[in-house]
Amino acid sequence: MHFTSEQRLDDGVLEREFTLGDIPGILWTPESAAAPVPLILMGHPGGMRRMYPRLVGRARHSVAEGFAAATIELPWSGDRPGSDAVDQARADVRRALEAGEPVGDDIVDRLILPLVDQAVPECQATLDALLSLPEISGPVGYSGGVISIGVRLAVVEPRIAAAGLFAGSFVPRSIIEEARQVTIPLHVLLQWDDEGNDRQAALDLFDAFGSKEKMLNANMGGHTGVPHYAGDAAAQFFTRHLK
Amino acid sequence: MHFTSEQRLDDGVLEREFTLGDIPGILWTPESAAAPVPLILMGHPGGMRRMYPRLVGRARHSVAEGFAAATIELPWSGDRPGSDAVDQARADVRRALEAGEPVGDDIVDRLILPLVDQAVPECQATLDALLSLPEISGPVGYSGGVISIGVRLAVVEPRIAAAGLFAGSFVPRSIIEEARQVTIPLHVLLQWDDEGNDRQAALDLFDAFGSKEKMLNANMGGHTGVPHYAGDAAAQFFTRHLK
Repeated sequence: MHFTSEQRLDDGVLEREFTLGDIPGILWTPESAAAPVPLILMGHPGGMRRMYPRLVGRARHSVAEGFAAATIELPWSGDRPGSDAVDQARADVRRALEAGEPVGDDIVDRLILPLVDQAVPECQATLDALLSLPEISGPVGYSGGVISIGVRLAVVEPRIAAAGLFAGSFVPRSIIEEARQVTIPLHVLLQWDDEGNDRQAALDLFDAFGSKEKMLNANMGGHTGVPHYAGDAAAQFFTRHLK
Repeated sequence: MHFTSEQRLDDGVLEREFTLGDIPGILWTPESAAAPVPLILMGHPGGMRRMYPRLVGRARHSVAEGFAAATIELPWSGDRPGSDAVDQARADVRRALEAGEPVGDDIVDRLILPLVDQAVPECQATLDALLSLPEISGPVGYSGGVISIGVRLAVVEPRIAAAGLFAGSFVPRSIIEEARQVTIPLHVLLQWDDEGNDRQAALDLFDAFGSKEKMLNANMGGHTGVPHYAGDAAAQFFTRHLK
């Protein structure tokens, strides 16, 4: 891992960009902390630069609560090399939505499963690097982003102790099956009227999770309309489980 | 309203029993408060004496958050006179559950609708009496109990400014229709594996509410297994809306 830039934000947050191989990422830590802090790995839908304003807002909240926060670019997104197969799947999704048709299972699988297979080991390598820094300790929370990545990470990565998931993207059926193996505490946000989201699939996924502690927190509004108090509840969830 | 007994609990809470006509009730207030406090009217499934341990726990939390709390006995429950028609409906519910059969709409209507028709005016008369006390001010929050009573109260009683509802009892279809007229902020608790509750009916009811601000908070476990942090979230909801 190489740090490529560093700046101090106005509220005592140190923001450092890094690369891990060819994967760009950003790390936010408290400028001064008495002891190593737990880490929240933040997901996003792809396009880290475009998502920066929302990511830095979430990171500032996390640092204020006593965590480090980090994110990496998704495969085939942002400045990373593309993939013809993924471009084709994205075009198929757009075509279906524009035609007012349901997005078929086949398209969802082609869009999401390669992403999960590629992104999860990259997240794990990122944890290897970040947890070797003296200012960061475990445990790790995973927050938001493509929910299928969160599901797989929760199954395969024992350093993830709790996950706050956002039911806001397509979920392959095989991932709903994987969800039965998840046992860590979960806090699941659902925007009830999310125009790009199948509510019943989200409820099925929530039902499938094997975790004894799982909370579904459904609020009104569309994809980007998560109310501030829902963010507060998610922060309390991480504080309960990572400290 | 006549106060019939008074005791000081160990944490600065004054508990007073009262009667309003032939309806028994209990009022909990802070022993010392600089100004009148908002009121939370607490529902329960009927049988106020039997429910007392849980009611006083909820009341203590509410008083600690700066509210007064009160509850009254439901019609045909506890020490109040019974009703042959309601006894018949209760027996029909038991018979259906013991036979492993669904509880039909007709039985649900016979069980719940007379209760709503009778209990709601009694709640309103209780508000008239309690809000005339110098130590209590508006606004009022309604919390828990038979959810259909909460729905009707939210529609007809303008002094109710926010409601925390518990999706844990039978809901007549006509009440789901009434729910479309509810516009106050709602915080709805759902126990995902509630043995006595139809999950889909609860989701349909949540969907029906006309409120712009409504949050569904679903947790694992059965009817009485609401986790403590879900109670904390409900308390934060009332603090946001009643203060």
